[in-house]
Amino acid sequence: MSEAKIRRPRAETPKGFRDYFGAEVTERKAMLDKIAEVYHRYGFDPLETSAVETVESLGKFLPDVDRPNEGVFAWQDEDADWLALRYDLTAPLARVAAQYRNDLPSPYRRYAMGPVWRNEKPGPGRFRQFYQCDADTVGAPSVAADAEICMMLADALEAVGIERGDYVIKVNNRKVLNGVMEVAGVLDPTDPERFSTERGIVLRAIDKMDRLGVEGVRALLGEGRKDESGDFTKGAGLSDVQAEVVMGFMTANITIAAELANLVFERFGDDSPPSRITRAMFSFDEKTGQPLTTDEEAVVYRNAVTFKHLRAIVGASPVGLQGVEELEEIASLLAAQGYGPDRIVIDPGVVRGLGYYTGPVFEAELTFEILDEKGRKRQFGSVAGGGRYDDLVKRFTGQSVPATGVSIGVDRLLAALRAKGRSGADTAGPVVVTVMDRDRMADYMGMVADLRRAGIRAEVYLGNPKNFGNQLKYADKRASPVAVIQGGNEAEQGTVILKDLILGAKIAQNATLEEWKDRPAQVEIARADLVARVQQMLGGQ
Amino acid sequence: MSEAKIRRPRAETPKGFRDYFGAEVTERKAMLDKIAEVYHRYGFDPLETSAVETVESLGKFLPDVDRPNEGVFAWQDEDADWLALRYDLTAPLARVAAQYRNDLPSPYRRYAMGPVWRNEKPGPGRFRQFYQCDADTVGAPSVAADAEICMMLADALEAVGIERGDYVIKVNNRKVLNGVMEVAGVLDPTDPERFSTERGIVLRAIDKMDRLGVEGVRALLGEGRKDESGDFTKGAGLSDVQAEVVMGFMTANITIAAELANLVFERFGDDSPPSRITRAMFSFDEKTGQPLTTDEEAVVYRNAVTFKHLRAIVGASPVGLQGVEELEEIASLLAAQGYGPDRIVIDPGVVRGLGYYTGPVFEAELTFEILDEKGRKRQFGSVAGGGRYDDLVKRFTGQSVPATGVSIGVDRLLAALRAKGRSGADTAGPVVVTVMDRDRMADYMGMVADLRRAGIRAEVYLGNPKNFGNQLKYADKRASPVAVIQGGNEAEQGTVILKDLILGAKIAQNATLEEWKDRPAQVEIARADLVARVQQMLGGQ
Repeated sequence: MSEAKIRRPRAETPKGFRDYFGAEVTERKAMLDKIAEVYHRYGFDPLETSAVETVESLGKFLPDVDRPNEGVFAWQDEDADWLALRYDLTAPLARVAAQYRNDLPSPYRRYAMGPVWRNEKPGPGRFRQFYQCDADTVGAPSVAADAEICMMLADALEAVGIERGDYVIKVNNRKVLNGVMEVAGVLDPTDPERFSTERGIVLRAIDKMDRLGVEGVRALLGEGRKDESGDFTKGAGLSDVQAEVVMGFMTANITIAAELANLVFERFGDDSPPSRITRAMFSFDEKTGQPLTTDEEAVVYRNAVTFKHLRAIVGASPVGLQGVEELEEIASLLAAQGYGPDRIVIDPGVVRGLGYYTGPVFEAELTFEILDEKGRKRQFGSVAGGGRYDDLVKRFTGQSVPATGVSIGVDRLLAALRAKGRSGADTAGPVVVTVMDRDRMADYMGMVADLRRAGIRAEVYLGNPKNFGNQLKYADKRASPVAVIQGGNEAEQGTVILKDLILGAKIAQNATLEEWKDRPAQVEIARADLVARVQQMLGGQ
Repeated sequence: MSEAKIRRPRAETPKGFRDYFGAEVTERKAMLDKIAEVYHRYGFDPLETSAVETVESLGKFLPDVDRPNEGVFAWQDEDADWLALRYDLTAPLARVAAQYRNDLPSPYRRYAMGPVWRNEKPGPGRFRQFYQCDADTVGAPSVAADAEICMMLADALEAVGIERGDYVIKVNNRKVLNGVMEVAGVLDPTDPERFSTERGIVLRAIDKMDRLGVEGVRALLGEGRKDESGDFTKGAGLSDVQAEVVMGFMTANITIAAELANLVFERFGDDSPPSRITRAMFSFDEKTGQPLTTDEEAVVYRNAVTFKHLRAIVGASPVGLQGVEELEEIASLLAAQGYGPDRIVIDPGVVRGLGYYTGPVFEAELTFEILDEKGRKRQFGSVAGGGRYDDLVKRFTGQSVPATGVSIGVDRLLAALRAKGRSGADTAGPVVVTVMDRDRMADYMGMVADLRRAGIRAEVYLGNPKNFGNQLKYADKRASPVAVIQGGNEAEQGTVILKDLILGAKIAQNATLEEWKDRPAQVEIARADLVARVQQMLGGQ
């Protein structure tokens, strides 16, 4: 007992979890508020389900076929029911859509923002609780719903401060990919489960085109691939003929480039000087064949050729053809609303990992460069993705319900805004009123009250006031712009001293007083002028 | 296997949990945003800890001595660590204050808003996940910090829409109560654990003064009390002499009333007409002796007499005297900032249930009446409470850290705002553009885009458009103010039809068209005038 007495609990965040302080909270909130405003204007309603679901309705494991062993946080209720923390916001939506199917409007447009939990091995920057921000439309079979989601996503990215040109939303259709699989002989429409392992490998290979290039993808379609470190990844085991079908699709962009060249020559002749459109059409990434242009006229050409080419590849597959037609409809709806390729492009190379997508898929990428941990430039990359998943509600009701949606990676988008210096929230510290004379606390509280009434964030020092240096250190830790000081002398004379802490910080940064010489580090002013003078100092930030 | 095949998961919210839809989410958010704005202006920083804590740092059970068997949702990690969902926002704050004690500013003012979880038997209106909204100051020993919390709470209540006069914040001090216990012989300063059961019963009895009256409380101090239904509640077993000490404290307000009468007579003489102050001083609740006045001058008298009286009761207890002095200091700081008894009052009858309070305690009550489930009028009651708890961080570090804070009952305050018709959030449905001709989806999407660009919430119908009646039913379910209709004829003529759904709803309510006869139920207008005419209709709501 006496030994146990000195055993104290450790004050520690559980492994893989973290705390968010001050600006981390307000910046995220400011971003989500702006997104919610866009979603609201589009007619989407907020939904907040509880963090806890029954394991039965949630499904015990993540739906990602990539990682079947990763789980959820689950426990057994006193009634022997298994409960779990939600691992995403889509599974609870499917449950809600089934549970309230007679009460909800149909189609049901909803958005949801909140934490989700994953019982995964934590890693650097990888936490077991993180935010998701989803918007979905349930009960809308038309691809107009998919087009709407893409346009809304573009609006949301711009609303939070990602400028046009700094992002692109890529749209593809799983049905096109399925058509390719069917033609390549790894999808049997009469037995959808057959070849699912092979398809998984093929989809992952396609998804890695950017990183592995044509050679690497080709290897993964066959026996497998040895990477630079010598690690071997088993391939899909496709025959050469099968692999060529997939590679034909993968290199479609390169073929399209050649065809576009012919189109341009036909139209402008061999001798035409390289026009804007010609140049735009030929701006392809050498390694992947991805078009680099956002020139609108060029893209109309490109889309036309792309669709023609896709039809040729998946022609033997009805589902593949349907996929191409859907993409054409989406492209035409987007064009009609003026969402050009500077915002949204058709890109047959987009896969999206999750197994449950059944139709259009989308992915938003930020195209500006940042420096990675090693100081190398790289594209910021994906910040949102989604697609159509028509079978998720069926688990509950037996009836297929069409649904499509998008999820924004909250932490990644926030990191992008910070990298761009556009996180935007008000993160300024408060004016700190110091305490020189403990008995005059009411006077000091009166000062902060006056400042607050004028809308200025302000607080009185509430620690032990004996050591004045500690009070200024406190003001510094609070990132306070101004300290207010009133000792006995000042009180008698009806004055206060304002200490300019922004100035102090600037001098510390620049090591020169020159440019600040007209700005006094501290001034004694009449108490009656407190609010006006502080406002002046804050305005001069 | 074939039998298992047809077994589908039930689509159900787990027992004791619920989902929040649309306005339920936006109204709560609007309220919390307003509170956060006040807290921010007071210099409080947001903190968001994870939902999951180690059981070790959380403590396995709720700290409320009332209900020791109620627990938390907990489970064992793969590393054999026990994890749990937080049951409040104070325990995580204590953990954070200990974990980051070298990095946080001291004092540390923080606010936190978010869900907490309780593994309790659910009941009507009692859920296992609910919101809390807390503000605390850690590391401030002075009661100025308590006074600040009370003033900030008053500002927050007014910011969300509770008018002055519709609420009162009551302040007491646990040290005064402890002084009473000491004098009554149920608190031994040399052995604080002794008599803790008796003290628990006494505190609960005091807390129920409003409901039980003097007789009921007296019974609970002695052998016990049999209520109207015949149920017996065991009492604290105090002797008559002991009980009289507590009752003397309980009826202090009545004694104070008598003394105030003497003061008034001394000042104004026997023959003075009943002045404003006289009348105010005599406005006491007959049953409980609680003063009903908020007249400022009368309250200065009352406070002076209250403090004199409390000193007399707890005079033999040093901690009791210290408690009275702290209350006097709080009263004087509040008075200096103009927070009069119309907002904050000293009330020795306030207890607050939690065992961990060590100094000032506060409680915010809404004083307006509402109708309960049975249609009877009753005061709305408590919506927030808190106090000083100086020992919570000590669990981790061994060092006592002064802390004080308040928690707002989010659901109760929101219910109060709804009862007052002041929930304030924008809960209007979207304008619905119907689909008459599926092939012209791009045109309909163009209409909603135009409306949205003008800041109007709008959406196109995305369900199966075949049955037009379903589209109008949908608009109705969405609480849509206006439906937009464009069939082939209208499209040819460049017009659209606007259907006024607000009018439709009003007519349905009032069953008379008279007052609406100048307002047409639907109009055909030029497509070019769409935005202007819809704006006009919405403005006329």
